[in-house]
Amino acid sequence: MKVICYPAKEEWDELVKRPHLDVSELNATVEGVLNDVKNHGDSAVIRYEEKFDHAHLDSLSVSDAEMEEAESLVSLELKHALELAHHNISSFHQSQQFHGEKVETVSGVTCWQKSVAIEKVGLYIPGGTAPLFSTVLMLATPAKIAGCKEIVLCTPPNREGKVNPAILMAAKIAGVSKIFKIGGVQAIGAMAYGTESVPKVYKIFGPGNQYVMAAKQHVSLHDVAIDMPAGPSEVCVIADETSNPVFVAADLLSQAEHGVDSQVFLISTSEEMIEKVKEEVEKQLEQLPRKEMAAKSLDNSKLVLVKDYDEAIELSNTYAPEHLIIATRNYDELAEKVVNAGSVFLGQYACESAGDYASGTNHTLPTHGYALAYNGVNLDSYNRKITFQHLTDEGIRSIGNAVVVMAENEQLEAHANAMRVRVDEVGK
Amino acid sequence: MKVICYPAKEEWDELVKRPHLDVSELNATVEGVLNDVKNHGDSAVIRYEEKFDHAHLDSLSVSDAEMEEAESLVSLELKHALELAHHNISSFHQSQQFHGEKVETVSGVTCWQKSVAIEKVGLYIPGGTAPLFSTVLMLATPAKIAGCKEIVLCTPPNREGKVNPAILMAAKIAGVSKIFKIGGVQAIGAMAYGTESVPKVYKIFGPGNQYVMAAKQHVSLHDVAIDMPAGPSEVCVIADETSNPVFVAADLLSQAEHGVDSQVFLISTSEEMIEKVKEEVEKQLEQLPRKEMAAKSLDNSKLVLVKDYDEAIELSNTYAPEHLIIATRNYDELAEKVVNAGSVFLGQYACESAGDYASGTNHTLPTHGYALAYNGVNLDSYNRKITFQHLTDEGIRSIGNAVVVMAENEQLEAHANAMRVRVDEVGK
Repeated sequence: MKVICYPAKEEWDELVKRPHLDVSELNATVEGVLNDVKNHGDSAVIRYEEKFDHAHLDSLSVSDAEMEEAESLVSLELKHALELAHHNISSFHQSQQFHGEKVETVSGVTCWQKSVAIEKVGLYIPGGTAPLFSTVLMLATPAKIAGCKEIVLCTPPNREGKVNPAILMAAKIAGVSKIFKIGGVQAIGAMAYGTESVPKVYKIFGPGNQYVMAAKQHVSLHDVAIDMPAGPSEVCVIADETSNPVFVAADLLSQAEHGVDSQVFLISTSEEMIEKVKEEVEKQLEQLPRKEMAAKSLDNSKLVLVKDYDEAIELSNTYAPEHLIIATRNYDELAEKVVNAGSVFLGQYACESAGDYASGTNHTLPTHGYALAYNGVNLDSYNRKITFQHLTDEGIRSIGNAVVVMAENEQLEAHANAMRVRVDEVGK
Repeated sequence: MKVICYPAKEEWDELVKRPHLDVSELNATVEGVLNDVKNHGDSAVIRYEEKFDHAHLDSLSVSDAEMEEAESLVSLELKHALELAHHNISSFHQSQQFHGEKVETVSGVTCWQKSVAIEKVGLYIPGGTAPLFSTVLMLATPAKIAGCKEIVLCTPPNREGKVNPAILMAAKIAGVSKIFKIGGVQAIGAMAYGTESVPKVYKIFGPGNQYVMAAKQHVSLHDVAIDMPAGPSEVCVIADETSNPVFVAADLLSQAEHGVDSQVFLISTSEEMIEKVKEEVEKQLEQLPRKEMAAKSLDNSKLVLVKDYDEAIELSNTYAPEHLIIATRNYDELAEKVVNAGSVFLGQYACESAGDYASGTNHTLPTHGYALAYNGVNLDSYNRKITFQHLTDEGIRSIGNAVVVMAENEQLEAHANAMRVRVDEVGK
């Protein structure tokens, strides 16, 4: 872990820089698979499942029998945890429902927005050793609340052609309509273009490896919307002399265990706290099963000593972290000054893992500095705000001439005329 | 104009199909210019302005003297029209302000969203014969209301190195902070990467030709967010026997004059209305200065006769038009059933040009079927909703064990531990 004391502002840009992420070299491979799925549908998908996941599949969809089996395989303890998490995620996303009001912008002209769910959405859940059932809850729960009619989930099967039972259980709890045993680029292609089995969707959500990222980027150019660009996960912790070094160290480690490219950033107003956290990290690291990976990620971590709280929050805003934990005494005051972050955790008890699983906030968040322009997945992500307007004859009197003048000045005569025929009618 | 009577549902997909838009063949040219701007900043931009806009520029930014000159050149009539439009756009977008409420998802766990403006945004306004000053109002007004600190506008100069005065006037009214005389790919590059003169922004908005579209796509992969993908403008009108054929024809023509690739779609429950509209279109077309272009666009237009209102709205939802005019008697009832559209115009007086200029709704809308997944530009487009959460010791008791169980089952031991150390502390 690298300690940096009182860096000058000119050094900040360098300090917050993420490693360059470029998946364009994968494009040829990815486009090949996507085109194959586009042209050959299910048969191509089945072929790639054999090749990449070593699974021989007769049917791509998860059967009712498999759903029932999954339910019997999940422990009661985990089932209850999933239900509690689902309750909290539902409760928070439910509160994000939008109710547009009609606005009379000028006499006789009324405008409003209506939030309407995207009809078909696709969720991608990666496979691997650890089943990301929490992401199923995070992506499917708001889709269901928004009222998406078709919620399709793709996730890779294991070599026996089975999907992890906890993923199926989470999908059932959250209300997914169709589940397919498809992973990687072929899953993104199947949802973007549709196949005999898999419905074409209008927006694709979810994390994935570099191939999945490249595939999502590719299909987003023409065929389907995506949630947001992706990058390695990251956390920034702001601590002062009152913070609990055991907690701070545990939080840094929970980020570091994600992978060797995870970003861990500590900003502190107290040199003593930085030293204590360093010691604690080394102590806790020894207990971790993934300690080698975490240690590698920590090699790139930065512990930055700053002169005061204002500098701390300014540096954090420059970094624009996915997760920001404000573990200082005055966390409320600093929270007011957050401009760039995905999700913010306030006080000593709000650890990142609370939000990763069960506080109710979404854990699909902008990484890699994308928080400068993007927010995390929320209920809006599954809706579009369609605008409506109505004009009375009085409305034509209010804006008719202005519209004609502006259209004429933009040399759009037919635009002017569409209003002129109405102005004439109203003037009769 | 092609009349299609009672098409079967199996034919709808073909009926609503847009021409394939692929700007990837421009990629080599576009990437060349972008890289040059990235590496050489202002000097590259000045070189491309000379090459593409035939303008020799000493300074890229619009001076105070030029702003004053512009004000003196705009007619009082246009100035008042701009001010009225700005008032209405402000009023509607102001009403979209978000006020998040704190939600206690479970005892001791509080979550909320806060809407925070993107700090730096870039607006692109194309040049050409007709100055799109209305788009300046549409893009800059909500940026100002959101509270974006830096609102940068790029628009190409003419051969004399001047920007159209109406564009400058609109920029002044709407509160743009910096205006640059830069067009095309070099403008997108300058805003995406920053140059000596032009600040790097975090999100780029605005229309443009195929090169601009390709450039926006390219920079959106890594460097900056964009408003939405773009395509040719389009309108769908739903009419019944009570609609005014003069109005409907004028509305179809106002779309057709945009360009030869504009999409014009009429859905009617009345065969007689379709005939009347056809006649009216031919009559009005003769009066238009852009009649050749409009006529070409009309060649591809479709007038579709359907059996009832339900089929009319269902076909419209399948088409997912940028603009939807519902000119039927029962427009309120049909409005309730709109699922896919950008902006909807209700009743006989709400022509598209009302919303293009001055009703208050935004005219930057999803084309090309993108309304299936995207909405138009609104106040949200300039904000991010950052999530916050706070836990008390009671909150740890509420969700602590669930978090530990879920983290353990995802094999993320450090995640479990970050909560476990808090559960231990609270249990003491």
